[in-house]
Amino acid sequence: MALPPKTVERLSQYRRILYNNLNKGKDNIYSHELASQLQLTPVQVRRDIMLIGYSGTQRKGYLVEDLITRIGKVLDGNQKLNTATIGIGHLGKAIITYFNGKRTKLDIAAAFDVDENKINRVIADVKCYHINELCNKIKELNISIAILTLSPEHAQEITDKLVVCGIKGILNFTSVPLNIPDNVNIYVEDYDMITSLEKVAYFVNHND
Amino acid sequence: MALPPKTVERLSQYRRILYNNLNKGKDNIYSHELASQLQLTPVQVRRDIMLIGYSGTQRKGYLVEDLITRIGKVLDGNQKLNTATIGIGHLGKAIITYFNGKRTKLDIAAAFDVDENKINRVIADVKCYHINELCNKIKELNISIAILTLSPEHAQEITDKLVVCGIKGILNFTSVPLNIPDNVNIYVEDYDMITSLEKVAYFVNHND
Repeated sequence: MALPPKTVERLSQYRRILYNNLNKGKDNIYSHELASQLQLTPVQVRRDIMLIGYSGTQRKGYLVEDLITRIGKVLDGNQKLNTATIGIGHLGKAIITYFNGKRTKLDIAAAFDVDENKINRVIADVKCYHINELCNKIKELNISIAILTLSPEHAQEITDKLVVCGIKGILNFTSVPLNIPDNVNIYVEDYDMITSLEKVAYFVNHND
Repeated sequence: MALPPKTVERLSQYRRILYNNLNKGKDNIYSHELASQLQLTPVQVRRDIMLIGYSGTQRKGYLVEDLITRIGKVLDGNQKLNTATIGIGHLGKAIITYFNGKRTKLDIAAAFDVDENKINRVIADVKCYHINELCNKIKELNISIAILTLSPEHAQEITDKLVVCGIKGILNFTSVPLNIPDNVNIYVEDYDMITSLEKVAYFVNHND
C-alpha cells in the first residue's frame, strides 16, 4: 500500500537533511534534530520513520547511513525512472542542470521545446527534441515522468498529448491546474513559486 | 494571530484556482470543486475559508471575486513588500521573469550576484547589483524578503549576511538547510525540487 503523499514528501526531506549531516561526518541523529531542521515535531518524525519499519534508540537516535538506505528503498523503488523536461526556458534549464546526477534512480532522459534554435542542442548531457517527437521519444526512451516548465498557455494542450502518449506522472511548474481524464491514472504534483513567496510574505507581515 | 503555515499555503492555492476560474468567466464555485483541483477534501476547504471569516451558500457555493478579495486581504496585508533575488543563474532569471508583475503587493526590487558580467544588467526590469552592496541596497530599497537561488556552497555565508542586514523572510531554493540564530525572527521557507520529483516518482512506482 502506498504511503500518504505528505509522508513521502517528508521522507524525501529527511533524506536531504541526512545526506547533509552525513557529509558533515555525523553518524547519528535524533528525531528532534531532524524535526527542528524541518519545522516539524519530533513525534511526527518518529511516526513517519516507524511507518517505513525503521526505529532508532533513545540513546543514539537514528544511524544516519542506515536511515538513508532505508528511505532509499522506500522512495526509489527498484526500477530507474526516466523523466523529460518540457519547455527549455530559464526554468527548464535550471531544472536540468540541477537534477541530473543527483539521484541515481531518477534521470532526465530528454528535453522538448518548439524553438528550432534549441532542437538537437544538448544541455547538461540532455538532448532537446522537437515537441512533435514527444510520443515517439517517450516510448523509445521509456520516459514515465514529465516535468512541465513550458508557458502556462500551452500546459493543457501538452498535458492532453502526454495522456495519449501514456505518461505516468507529471511535475507541473506552470501554475495552471491540469485537467486529466478521470479514467486515466496519472499522478500530478503542482508547484507554484508564488505560493511559497506568498507564505513568506504573510509571515513577514505577521512577525511584528 | 497568524494562521498556520499550511492554511496560508492552501489559501494561496485557492486564490490561484479562483483566478483561473474567474478568467474562464465563472462567478461561483463550490468547495468540492476547489477541493478536487487541489487533491483536498471539501471539509478542509470549507474549514480554511471559514477561518478567514468567509462563507458560501449551499446553493451557489462561493462568489469567486469576493473570495479572491477576501483571501487578498488576509495574505497580502496592507504594505507592499520588496524582495530580492540572490544568485542570477537560470533559476534566478526564471523567478524574476515569472514573478514580476504577477502580484501587486510583492515586487522583486533588486537582484544580486558576484559575476562582474551580470552587475548593472537589468533582467525583466530588475537591476543586478554586486553582492557587496547587499546590506546597503536592502536598506535603501526597503527589501524584507530574500529569494536564494545561488549555489548551495554559498547559501549559509549569504544567510549570515542577510541576518546582519535585517532581512525578515527567506525563500530558500538552494536545498541546503539554513542556520539562523535563535534570537533572530526570520521566516524561512525551503523548497527543493528534488522532493517534488521524488514524490511523483514514488507514486508512479506505486501506481500499478
